[in-house]
Amino acid sequence: MSSSSDIIRVTVWGENLHEQRHEAVQKIYPTGMHTVIAEGIRENLGARAEVRTATLDQPEHGLTEEVLAETDVLTWWGHMGHSQVDDAVVKRVYDRVLAGMGLIVLHSGHWSKIFVRLMGTSCTLRWRESGDREVVWNVSPGHPITEGIGEAFVIPEQETYSEYFDIPPPQELIFLSTYSGGEVFRSGITYTRGLGRIFYFSPGHETHPVYYQPEVRRVIANAVAWANRPGRPHYTSTTCIQSPTGWFLPKE
Amino acid sequence: MSSSSDIIRVTVWGENLHEQRHEAVQKIYPTGMHTVIAEGIRENLGARAEVRTATLDQPEHGLTEEVLAETDVLTWWGHMGHSQVDDAVVKRVYDRVLAGMGLIVLHSGHWSKIFVRLMGTSCTLRWRESGDREVVWNVSPGHPITEGIGEAFVIPEQETYSEYFDIPPPQELIFLSTYSGGEVFRSGITYTRGLGRIFYFSPGHETHPVYYQPEVRRVIANAVAWANRPGRPHYTSTTCIQSPTGWFLPKE
Amino acid sequence: MSSSSDIIRVTVWGENLHEQRHEAVQKIYPTGMHTVIAEGIRENLGARAEVRTATLDQPEHGLTEEVLAETDVLTWWGHMGHSQVDDAVVKRVYDRVLAGMGLIVLHSGHWSKIFVRLMGTSCTLRWRESGDREVVWNVSPGHPITEGIGEAFVIPEQETYSEYFDIPPPQELIFLSTYSGGEVFRSGITYTRGLGRIFYFSPGHETHPVYYQPEVRRVIANAVAWANRPGRPHYTSTTCIQSPTGWFLPKE
Amino acid sequence: MSSSSDIIRVTVWGENLHEQRHEAVQKIYPTGMHTVIAEGIRENLGARAEVRTATLDQPEHGLTEEVLAETDVLTWWGHMGHSQVDDAVVKRVYDRVLAGMGLIVLHSGHWSKIFVRLMGTSCTLRWRESGDREVVWNVSPGHPITEGIGEAFVIPEQETYSEYFDIPPPQELIFLSTYSGGEVFRSGITYTRGLGRIFYFSPGHETHPVYYQPEVRRVIANAVAWANRPGRPHYTSTTCIQSPTGWFLPKE
Repeated sequence: MSSSSDIIRVTVWGENLHEQRHEAVQKIYPTGMHTVIAEGIRENLGARAEVRTATLDQPEHGLTEEVLAETDVLTWWGHMGHSQVDDAVVKRVYDRVLAGMGLIVLHSGHWSKIFVRLMGTSCTLRWRESGDREVVWNVSPGHPITEGIGEAFVIPEQETYSEYFDIPPPQELIFLSTYSGGEVFRSGITYTRGLGRIFYFSPGHETHPVYYQPEVRRVIANAVAWANRPGRPHYTSTTCIQSPTGWFLPKE
Repeated sequence: MSSSSDIIRVTVWGENLHEQRHEAVQKIYPTGMHTVIAEGIRENLGARAEVRTATLDQPEHGLTEEVLAETDVLTWWGHMGHSQVDDAVVKRVYDRVLAGMGLIVLHSGHWSKIFVRLMGTSCTLRWRESGDREVVWNVSPGHPITEGIGEAFVIPEQETYSEYFDIPPPQELIFLSTYSGGEVFRSGITYTRGLGRIFYFSPGHETHPVYYQPEVRRVIANAVAWANRPGRPHYTSTTCIQSPTGWFLPKE
Repeated sequence: MSSSSDIIRVTVWGENLHEQRHEAVQKIYPTGMHTVIAEGIRENLGARAEVRTATLDQPEHGLTEEVLAETDVLTWWGHMGHSQVDDAVVKRVYDRVLAGMGLIVLHSGHWSKIFVRLMGTSCTLRWRESGDREVVWNVSPGHPITEGIGEAFVIPEQETYSEYFDIPPPQELIFLSTYSGGEVFRSGITYTRGLGRIFYFSPGHETHPVYYQPEVRRVIANAVAWANRPGRPHYTSTTCIQSPTGWFLPKE
Repeated sequence: MSSSSDIIRVTVWGENLHEQRHEAVQKIYPTGMHTVIAEGIRENLGARAEVRTATLDQPEHGLTEEVLAETDVLTWWGHMGHSQVDDAVVKRVYDRVLAGMGLIVLHSGHWSKIFVRLMGTSCTLRWRESGDREVVWNVSPGHPITEGIGEAFVIPEQETYSEYFDIPPPQELIFLSTYSGGEVFRSGITYTRGLGRIFYFSPGHETHPVYYQPEVRRVIANAVAWANRPGRPHYTSTTCIQSPTGWFLPKE
């Protein structure tokens, strides 16, 4: 069994463009959203996690082979820079997820190349920037991702994300969000792809201080711990395997 | 409601390479596997379906915009020619599935570009050509795809396909296959992508007369009927939609 | 394949107590909710369905062995009389669902003996009678149950049903409802139990004319057609079956 | 977050009848199957678990309110004594599962009162005592329950369990088993009921030393750790809750 000394190696990826370009965003996230997201994970997981960050402007977007090889769980926030993410890096992250790396996709990351590729759908949705109140409802109260989260929590102001959200039916539906305008969104959902676990979580618009909110930080940290699979097999199914009769039998 | 006069427009796509190049295959399928698959659908659906075929060697592989616009359900058999399928045609089929076209992927089609793209995983598996007996077990006896199919049926000789099959957890598990050598395979599985319904069915190696077997033909025909969604909305979610407060309210 | 002459035999079960006792309900449903629900099914399915009704006050609640044997799909509306339903009748309906009868459970039927027994959970929820506006969101636009239903429709006044709804994770999530107060509810969900298909649909409080609304009637009729499995095997798994080696092989 | 000092309190329930009555079983399990199952959990979880046992012949079958209140995860092996289990105890276990206790149901426990009640189906299957070889295939290689388990493992001799297994479609399909005779069985499956996590695992016939096999012990121990939800909310949804508008809003 995994020992209690296991450390989760987390890489928090942030596009870090809005924070550089929009004064309103800069005021809320002066050192970038990625640093605040990383801080929330450290705050909740403490010594159980080693957290680093990476951003779009770094060489290979900070997601080199070396970095990914040392990453158990990757979190992803992107928006205006989706198309600037290099296809080779997307393929690298994709391969690593299939090989067992956890992936936490946040907010506008729903339309990132990596999420769309893993889902096999358009991942489009309805949206509105009107400062609606969002209520996040916990519909999986026994799930590790909702540990410490009550029946519902409120985000005072958020971008509205609404159905129809063009995703494959989630494997697990964890959170549902409603908005003042009457909309609904499947805001916390899980998938498996290969050996990797994926959690999408929609709260987090850049013009609201969502990543400072304790419940949001707790959910992301819970998801990191859930997506970490230290005991996963160390192989990838990169090709089909010709298998002689009885290959699986014990050797005598 | 859909009237009983609704006709399902089916296109049976076949790579049609083995049939041209390997004498053993030619003997079993002298006019190509696609014609036998088409025949099986006609036999079971009768006047409910209009079935045409398309092959790799045709312009645009026979899957032009016009053909796809007139196709309610597409069946896909490919193997040695996967890499020859043009990416633009794959994208066209992909878009059409998301817009509601049904897709039935057969046997070695598990590794086709279109299936891999829709799944978001490697779709690799274990395999062996040893003429094992395959037993196909019905684990969804109330499902439309198993209508007329008993608890299990036997394919006397087949290529062995075995776990681990690197696919997303199926939405519905319809059939499980066992092989003489002790292997198991999730051989009949469903998915939804966008508005489209997908069924993967593994029986059908080219060196065995599998597509002449009544149970196999019945399953494929059942799947065609199940994947046909005549009442689907006529839109595709090709982009995110900015939606003003109350857009969904009745106009007064 | 099932021929187009197949008729769906539907029994609409109504508790018919509120309609007898509360003047406000009587005004809306003078002949009982069951007759209006039945009318909505006939309106949508026409000659495809034969619809009868049954009520709590009838001998064996109108659900004799004979009636159930001739019922392909049963719809269920109950509320204040849940505890008056005889356990033997509940067991009879349960057995028949496992043997392939479709079951459509409406509104307060969530807490009926039959639904609780089939689910294996408490089926409790939060509620409020405050005349909130309900918006029903279609999150399975390619599903037969949503045929003819757009992205969302509005029920002007409804009882509020809210999460946490203590149900097993639905096999298919079809509708989500939001309420003016900010609540959310998984309002259209499917399950399989044995050979039977089950659809729960929450709209329908007795003090609002919900079963006259065209979208609600269409959904119920769609669900009846979806739950009807004319080609299901004619057996029930009432016991474990000792099975000799090779029992499934073709007889020679 | 749950600290590493959290101890999982496990109760291993065994019917302990075959072991008393059948010499062949007594030879394999002289102190009862429950003690060997308990030993396997201790072996794998070490200081992470406190394991006790309970048996049918004890007052209240050893499952008093006190014992259940101190049980995080219960494992269940029963067979010939299913009908002797008191309904009040079954209801007590049921309530406790909905409130968050994990439940691991083993082998012939598929037909126990508690499992049938939680599933809502007949839970019947096909079977044969012919000493077939069972191969257990891992179809969820990234799942916590398969940690340390390879692609497949062999149980040299086992009772054959075969489809059709009349269960609700599993939430997660973890293992599939094949038998020498060509049968297949969904042998490792998960469900959620209320706040509780349930794992059914079919290996374990009393006339074979299955619970001494390291892979089987590892799977059961993994499942115990997975089903343990220390951070679950401390409530049960025992009734519907009338909820005033805005009940979920932060108090000011």
